[in-house]
Amino acid sequence: MRITSIRETAAPISSQIANAYIDFSKMTCSLVAVTTDVIRDGRPVTGFGFSSNGRYAAGAIMRDRMIPRLLEAAPESLLDPESGLIDPFRCWDRMMVNEKPGGHGERSVAVGTLDMAVWDALAKIEGVPLWRLLADRYKGGVADDSVWVYAAGGYYHPGKGIDGLVDEVKSYQDMGYVDFKLKIGGAPLPEDMQRIEAVIGVAGSGAHVAVDANGRFDRATAIAYASALESLGLLWYEEAGDPLDYALQAELAPHYRHAMATGENLFSTIDATNLIRYGGMRPDRDWLQFDCALSYGLCEYTRTLAMLDAHGWSSRRVVPHGGHQMSLNIAAGLHLGGNESYPGIFQPFGGFADGIRVEAGRVKLPETPGIGIETKAGLYALCRELAAG
Amino acid sequence: MRITSIRETAAPISSQIANAYIDFSKMTCSLVAVTTDVIRDGRPVTGFGFSSNGRYAAGAIMRDRMIPRLLEAAPESLLDPESGLIDPFRCWDRMMVNEKPGGHGERSVAVGTLDMAVWDALAKIEGVPLWRLLADRYKGGVADDSVWVYAAGGYYHPGKGIDGLVDEVKSYQDMGYVDFKLKIGGAPLPEDMQRIEAVIGVAGSGAHVAVDANGRFDRATAIAYASALESLGLLWYEEAGDPLDYALQAELAPHYRHAMATGENLFSTIDATNLIRYGGMRPDRDWLQFDCALSYGLCEYTRTLAMLDAHGWSSRRVVPHGGHQMSLNIAAGLHLGGNESYPGIFQPFGGFADGIRVEAGRVKLPETPGIGIETKAGLYALCRELAAG
Repeated sequence: MRITSIRETAAPISSQIANAYIDFSKMTCSLVAVTTDVIRDGRPVTGFGFSSNGRYAAGAIMRDRMIPRLLEAAPESLLDPESGLIDPFRCWDRMMVNEKPGGHGERSVAVGTLDMAVWDALAKIEGVPLWRLLADRYKGGVADDSVWVYAAGGYYHPGKGIDGLVDEVKSYQDMGYVDFKLKIGGAPLPEDMQRIEAVIGVAGSGAHVAVDANGRFDRATAIAYASALESLGLLWYEEAGDPLDYALQAELAPHYRHAMATGENLFSTIDATNLIRYGGMRPDRDWLQFDCALSYGLCEYTRTLAMLDAHGWSSRRVVPHGGHQMSLNIAAGLHLGGNESYPGIFQPFGGFADGIRVEAGRVKLPETPGIGIETKAGLYALCRELAAG
Repeated sequence: MRITSIRETAAPISSQIANAYIDFSKMTCSLVAVTTDVIRDGRPVTGFGFSSNGRYAAGAIMRDRMIPRLLEAAPESLLDPESGLIDPFRCWDRMMVNEKPGGHGERSVAVGTLDMAVWDALAKIEGVPLWRLLADRYKGGVADDSVWVYAAGGYYHPGKGIDGLVDEVKSYQDMGYVDFKLKIGGAPLPEDMQRIEAVIGVAGSGAHVAVDANGRFDRATAIAYASALESLGLLWYEEAGDPLDYALQAELAPHYRHAMATGENLFSTIDATNLIRYGGMRPDRDWLQFDCALSYGLCEYTRTLAMLDAHGWSSRRVVPHGGHQMSLNIAAGLHLGGNESYPGIFQPFGGFADGIRVEAGRVKLPETPGIGIETKAGLYALCRELAAG
């Protein structure tokens, strides 16, 4: 078998929301289609991949570097010699030829997006959902039959007051969510505390409410928030400081006994390793949020999970950023702790299968082969259009 | 004053060389021209910037994100209110609007290249060389009147044997260089030792010879090389392991009492901070090699130098990667320890003013306003063409 074409485009995932660091009105997302010469249901199999929110489309990097490398490779060099099928790890190695170590950003999005499409193609060729393929390959066939998800929202929005925030969280409850996350750091601490308390009022307790500073705080502010939040018993306190400031994260731990979370802005296994080595994260309570689509894809994710295992961390402490189907498959197939969800935003890329509802804060996965993009009409329409060229 | 146009292009810096990690035959470089409405010598001032070798052109990131942000900004918002001239730090902040923290690669090249052009424009407007502007602004007017440079070469090249390596180093000697660097890790250790000893034979002593593994080694190999190199008393042992594997670097120190060097693949102040915090680097002997063109430019470099100072590191321990005029200006103006040089390769971007020879391993700087691009005919021809549009 061989790859016959790779198509790539950028699409807006614009949204009138803002977190403490950026607004999303100009955010873009990469979409790729990797077509093979394998026929299933009378048509060549195409794998699809898309990047995640928070970082920009990486199409130029793909077009200039990774796509030519894949297409110029001897086709058999990309195959698993045992199965004769496309091997995501060989594709990954090929994409990274002539790339120097270090500097893990943007390029990690380009590779992560293409890697997703390769896994989608492989699962479609094997005729199984990706979560099933992963469970069979890595977990003795045992997959989770549903995944805990939480509703990430509570963004700052011009004119949105406490009432708007409460209405938003109630709407998530109506959709079946039990746990919620809101942004902090875009308003003064007393105002943020009012916002948090309002969300707790809807959620029922602090244990159902996480807060996310998006890396905005300096040491003093991070500690001030930690002190203010301590008595609320929150689900977690996320990304207090710069995601690479491991010392700040480590210094925060003695100031905050409840769970903390970070990792969405670390884009490689070695960066994740440094967080574990130096960040003072606690394997009995804290959460890790690496997003495969932004961080070199599932191949690299398996290396990150192996690193975590070697450091005594359970995969159940990993709850990926992004709210997309790829992480949901990984969560079910590789036994993660759950997955983020952004109800109704970052469309059509975010979210899960159209026909599957969130129930009591958990979501099931479709049985369709691949990642499940075909179960999401809006996203699949974009994908079909791209593949048609 | 205001910016009237920003032009950008990619140019090959292809070369038939390879280090232990990549070959450079498809390497590209970004070139930018930032034109202002300030008239000097009858013409609008244009600042030029270019990226450095080892990472690819970052034009799409500039075109999609940084250039529109600069051009859409209120012109006065980019000016120093005291001087009324363009303020590189305000430009920097503007370029980074809507960029999340972390993920420092590629984007850091885009910003670094544009930042270089802004500083070049500012120095031209002030009618002084950049090294003079920097010395006046940060060092009480005292600039170094020459900069130590070493010849970085010794690449692996198909068919190049020990004789070829010796001839190469002799050619650098003829050019006025005293110190040399060769690549290691692309051949087995015994062969690398022969190569190193051959270079020492030309250089006169190990103290004039540095070796560079380009981040290729695992822990065991890094230590094996350390043991083998120990008795040679080399100038330094560079980038033994993955540039982000601070633990490997720290573990190496007890195995190697001579100087080590790293940093060219760390692209932000926070990444540099982590190296200093966790890498076990020794301020009395080791070298730091951050390359401004790849790491958000001179604005970020000033923050990195301030961080180093706060950690007890002298700026004299900094010898930037890249071998380009921008780092040479920073070296002279901000009192660094020296600068890399790649005689004859990575042209026309690499290297210094055409008319200024290396003498006894040191190079002087031109008195022309700006970075000195106009003193380098091949590079200036490309710049003129770009600015003409």
